[in-house]
Parts: sequence; C-alpha cells; structure tokens
Amino acid sequence: MFHAPAVFPRGFRCASRNVGLKPSARDLTLFVSEVEANAAAVFTRNHFPGAPIILGRETIRAGRLRAVVANSKCSNVATGAQGVENARRMGAAAAAEIGTTADRVLVSSTGVIGVQLQIEKVEAGIVGITADLQDDPMVGAEGIMTTDTHPKALSATVGNATITWVAKGSGMIEPNMATMLAYIFTDAAIEAAVLDAMLRRAVDASFNMLSVDTDTSTSDTCAILANGLAGAVDLAEFERVLTAGCVRMTEILARDGEGAQHLLRVTVRQASTQAEAKRIAKAIVNSPLIKTMVHGADPNVGRILMAVGKCTDCTIHPTSTDAWINGFAVVKGGARMVFDEATVRSALAAEVVDLEVALGVGTGYAQAWGCDLTKGYIEENASYYSS
Amino acid sequence: MFHAPAVFPRGFRCASRNVGLKPSARDLTLFVSEVEANAAAVFTRNHFPGAPIILGRETIRAGRLRAVVANSKCSNVATGAQGVENARRMGAAAAAEIGTTADRVLVSSTGVIGVQLQIEKVEAGIVGITADLQDDPMVGAEGIMTTDTHPKALSATVGNATITWVAKGSGMIEPNMATMLAYIFTDAAIEAAVLDAMLRRAVDASFNMLSVDTDTSTSDTCAILANGLAGAVDLAEFERVLTAGCVRMTEILARDGEGAQHLLRVTVRQASTQAEAKRIAKAIVNSPLIKTMVHGADPNVGRILMAVGKCTDCTIHPTSTDAWINGFAVVKGGARMVFDEATVRSALAAEVVDLEVALGVGTGYAQAWGCDLTKGYIEENASYYSS
Repeated sequence: MFHAPAVFPRGFRCASRNVGLKPSARDLTLFVSEVEANAAAVFTRNHFPGAPIILGRETIRAGRLRAVVANSKCSNVATGAQGVENARRMGAAAAAEIGTTADRVLVSSTGVIGVQLQIEKVEAGIVGITADLQDDPMVGAEGIMTTDTHPKALSATVGNATITWVAKGSGMIEPNMATMLAYIFTDAAIEAAVLDAMLRRAVDASFNMLSVDTDTSTSDTCAILANGLAGAVDLAEFERVLTAGCVRMTEILARDGEGAQHLLRVTVRQASTQAEAKRIAKAIVNSPLIKTMVHGADPNVGRILMAVGKCTDCTIHPTSTDAWINGFAVVKGGARMVFDEATVRSALAAEVVDLEVALGVGTGYAQAWGCDLTKGYIEENASYYSS
Repeated sequence: MFHAPAVFPRGFRCASRNVGLKPSARDLTLFVSEVEANAAAVFTRNHFPGAPIILGRETIRAGRLRAVVANSKCSNVATGAQGVENARRMGAAAAAEIGTTADRVLVSSTGVIGVQLQIEKVEAGIVGITADLQDDPMVGAEGIMTTDTHPKALSATVGNATITWVAKGSGMIEPNMATMLAYIFTDAAIEAAVLDAMLRRAVDASFNMLSVDTDTSTSDTCAILANGLAGAVDLAEFERVLTAGCVRMTEILARDGEGAQHLLRVTVRQASTQAEAKRIAKAIVNSPLIKTMVHGADPNVGRILMAVGKCTDCTIHPTSTDAWINGFAVVKGGARMVFDEATVRSALAAEVVDLEVALGVGTGYAQAWGCDLTKGYIEENASYYSS
C-alpha cells in the first residue's frame, strides 16, 4: 500500500536546516503547500500544553493552512507569556518567508520542557529557507527528530490523490486523544470539517492506541493539510487509506520507542465493550512486566493474566480468558497451558511480538501498540536534560 | 516510634524453613498465635486472584485466625481447581502441625504465576516446624521474600500492646485496594469488625498509594491478627500507630522496589478533591520519565508538569501550579523557575527524594510512594521466569 521511498502529494514541498538550537543536526523544518489547503488538527490534552499548542488551537479554527513550521531541541512548554510570544514570532517569520499571513502557518516545537526558545536563532535561520524547498518528505522528517533513531515518512495513493505522513516521536508517548508530532499532507480536495472528522476517527484507532511509556507529551500535534490539487476522491476509500497509514506510522513510532528492540502489538477481542477492549489493551501494552518479558524473551505468560486482571472495573471472566503469543496458545480458560517453552521463547524473540487476548464476554475489539522496556530507555531518560 | 530490632507482641511466634521450592533459601513460613486472634484481611482486586486468595476470602469471613502459613517461589496463580485444592492442603497441613482446624489458618503464596505448587514438598516440609518457632519476626519475613533484597519487619508500642508488621514485595506492585503480602500482629484486644475498618483505612493511606511498576499482583494480601493478650487499648491511638507503621512499611517496600536506588515520595496538596490528589500523586510516582529523572539526578523538572497535566480529567489551573524537590522550588505558577542546577541535582541525588506539588485549586491532599526506574529492574524482570 505504501510507496518506497515516500513522496509528497502535488504542491507540497519541505526544507530543513540547522539554525543553532542543536550543535549541528537539523533543528528547523518548513512544510509548504503552493496553494492554501483545507486543514484540521488534534492536539495534546495535557493540562500544560506548549505555547505552540495554545497558538495552534487558535490558528486551526479557520481550517486553512499554507505551511507548518517546526523546531526540535526545545519544546517551548512551561515558558509563560514569553513562550507564546516566541511561538507567534516563529509563525510570523515563516509566513514572511513564504509570502502569506501568520494565521495560515501552524507552529510546532519539540524537545526539552521548561526552557525558553532561542527565537532570534529561529528568526535568523528561517530567512532564505524557501530556496531549499524540495520534494523529499524525509528531509522534513529529519528536522523534527529528537530521540528518534531515524526520520519517519510514508505515502500512499487514493485514486488520483496521494497521502503523505511525516512524524516524529520516541519517548513521552501515550497520546490519549491527540498524538506526537505527525503531519499528513494530501492533494485530495476535501472540506475542512470532513477532514477533521476523518482525522479524529483515524487518530483514535492508531496514534491514540500507542504508548511507549504512559507519559503524555505536552506538545502532541497531528495535523492534516488537503490542498485539493488532485481534485475529489472517494471519501470512504480515502478514510480507509488515511487510517491504514496512521496505523502503520504508529507501528513505526512504537518500534522506534526510546531504547526499543521490539514492536509490541496487542489485540484484545471479545471484550464487553470497545472501551473496555481499549483499556485492557493499553494495560497490557503499558505493563512494565509484559515489556520486560518481551525484552528478555522470557515465557512468563502468567503476566498476561496479571495485566488483564488489574483492570478491576472491566468485565472479565477468568475461566473464559485465552491468550496467544505470535499465534501460539499460552493461556486457555484463565490457566497457563502446558506449552513448548523453546517455541514460545522464539516467538517472543521476534522483532514484532503479537500478543492476543480473547475474553469471551462480548464483541469489544481494540488494538494497541508499544515496545519493550530496555536499559536503553533508562540511559536516554536519566540524562535527557543534561545531554 | 519503631523498635529496633522488631519484636513480636505477646503470644506470637514464627518459623521458616527451606522445603525444596527454592534451591536452598527459606521458602516456607509459619506465623502462630498461642491463642485464637480476631482478624481482618484485604486482598488483591486483580480479576485473576491466586488460589490462596480465593481460599483466604472464605477463611477470613469468620474473623478468627490462629496462624498464617506462606510460601515463596510459586504464587499458585492461574492453576485452576488443582491450585485451590493445593492451597487447602497447605492450610490443612499447617493446622495439623499446630493443632487447630484449617479454617483458622490463612494461606499465602508468592512467586511465579502459572506454575502448580509442589504441595508434597510443602506437606512434608511443614511437619515438625513448630519445634522451630521463635521470637524474631525477621525469621518469618525471610521465608516470604522473592526479589526483596532484605527481610522486612517493624514493631511499635500502643499503651500496653505491641503492633508488629511483617511484609514482602519488590515488583508487580501497585496494590490499588489491597496490598502485597503484609501481616500485622498485635496483642491488643480489638473486635474483628473494628480491626477490619481500621485496616482498610490504614491500607488506603499507605500500601494502596505504593507503586513500584503499576502492575497489580494476583497475590496481594494484607492481614491483621489481634490476639488480645495485652487487653484493651485506646483505639484512636492504636489506629494512629497502625497507620504510621503501614506508611513506614510502604516506604521500606518502595525503597526495596526491584532495582531501586531511591525512595520517591510524592505529596500533592491543594487538589480539587482527595480523589484527584491521589490520582495525580500516582501519575507522578508512576511516570517513567519522573522515575528516570530521579535515577539520573537530571533536573528535567518540566516533566513534573507533564505528569500532572496528563491527568486530563482532573481540575488543574496551570498558572497556580507550584512544585518543589526536597524543598527547593522548581516550578512556580506553571512555569519552570530559574534555579541553581547543582543544588537541584544534589537534591535529586539524595536517597529519599520528596517531590511536592501544590495545585492551588482546593484542599485535596495525598501522598504516594515509589522508586526510581533502573537497569536493575529490567535485568530482574527480563528473566524472572527463567532464573
């Protein structure tokens, strides 16, 4: 379904640069549509949203965007009125550079919380960046990386149109009603209100079911820009591809979780309701004991029951609970099965570990995505501020 | 307030042995009162309770106990009808050994989930154990250890009576309405119903606010036995000491969390309600990014706001939120303060890290206890089943 390498839809280009926030890596990215695009966005629900989120909620009301400007290294969060002023200056600088007004530019920042953005470096660095605009989405993806180990972009076709996803995110990830930084570009012609509804549904089944570490970022932003240059598309087909791309990007983000060596994909079936299926899937994907079991390929499968069972306010019948690891049955009727340990060890050692639970109490279904917990996560996060 | 070393109240003794469940360490413990005691207990709310929990709920209904028998290494969880039968046999063996009926013996098991208990070893090993009964609570504490690095017992005086706490627990700890294995012995004369109410209040403010890793064990048990040999006590004073001992034992358990190098104590003040204060305190104490910040003594204090703010359904006014680390102000009015980084690094490097948040929206108050997240946690849990 996805193009390799990723390409942009008609009319979209990007550039990224080092403007001095990081020692030498790219730290400023600009995504531009040559014409105004219909747009929608969802943001973090954290009570301490970053200054760019406060500004972005205002900007997105019009449902129209020409560009996205994003910096890495500093998230401009917990920076008070000066932070919001700096976010405005960043949007204005990008607007001046591309020849539009600041209310058509979505601003994002990602990185350390609680440090003022060096706005002069951003303003100076953005001048002339339009000369660098080109067609490779990976260039933009590179400029928004923090602890990501690689830039992340995807694209797919719907009829005559293209959809392109660009995202970053590796830690402080349990979006819950929003997401990390993810931008979706398309040349399909779709109204802003329709885009908004589709985006919320797609995010709900993908990014919102991702958790690297249960910690909800203060900078989460997911925006979609539809510039219409490819004309109308079949909306049902568009939404199907939009959702599939969000799910695939969710898997890419999970696999690149801080320190991760495995993608952990949890499926919960036969729950009482979809809400309970989601809750239980999140409990499993977030359990440090499940994550370390996967990390060590240790067939300690009783932990699956522990994680399901700790959802004390969900309907669970112990004797109807079954579980599988990469297709191998390990729990039947709430009791651990006798199984070949070497086989289950091999299943757990795979790069992608599918953990499936059937509860036998209803038809609720959900999937969640995460990763194993490793010493690498601890190394990165014990000195993130200082390094 | 506490005796060093811990001592038993009148009439209580204990013994522990290796009966072959572990290679050589003590794996079976018996606590006995020379007369029947009034008793109360709370158990895990996990939907997959161990066989001893299923049995224990039945046993505690009478409010009378002579003894507690507990084994380590195997938790007898997810073991079906055979597991419950084995738990009954374990209680009956202990009852025969001390000369009482099985319905006066509380049974506990702790260790790996999903493995049948080797009941013949327990039955053979328990014979003659009363000859080993003696006065040091630490001997009993040693027999119930799993990944604990040291045995845990405390005692304190209330009037003429003594209260003694014996506990274990290091991982799979976020009790939530119950606790890990903790036994409380007293010679005070208190009715079972009064004991039960006091125990629930004390556990609620102590063990239930402890989290090592957000994972709720399937074996959690906290029981109190009051044999009355010291006669009546002032009940208000008794409850005050009971609660203080539960809090102190909570701190001891948190400090000995798997891989832990720091005790993390979180205080939330001025929340909208006590329930919200508890929720936010738990969010902070459970945040992997807070835990790794403490581990690395990295003054990345914006993470405190992130963790408070991710409680999306709590009342939080960003501009009235303040925070302190070991007394040093680091956040004021929702923004990171300018502070001396070396001082805050030193505060974070202390063995006990006090993290205090004032929300400025009400009078809700709560404390929670946890520990830092280290490579040691990952090492222990990536191979717990296999090792």
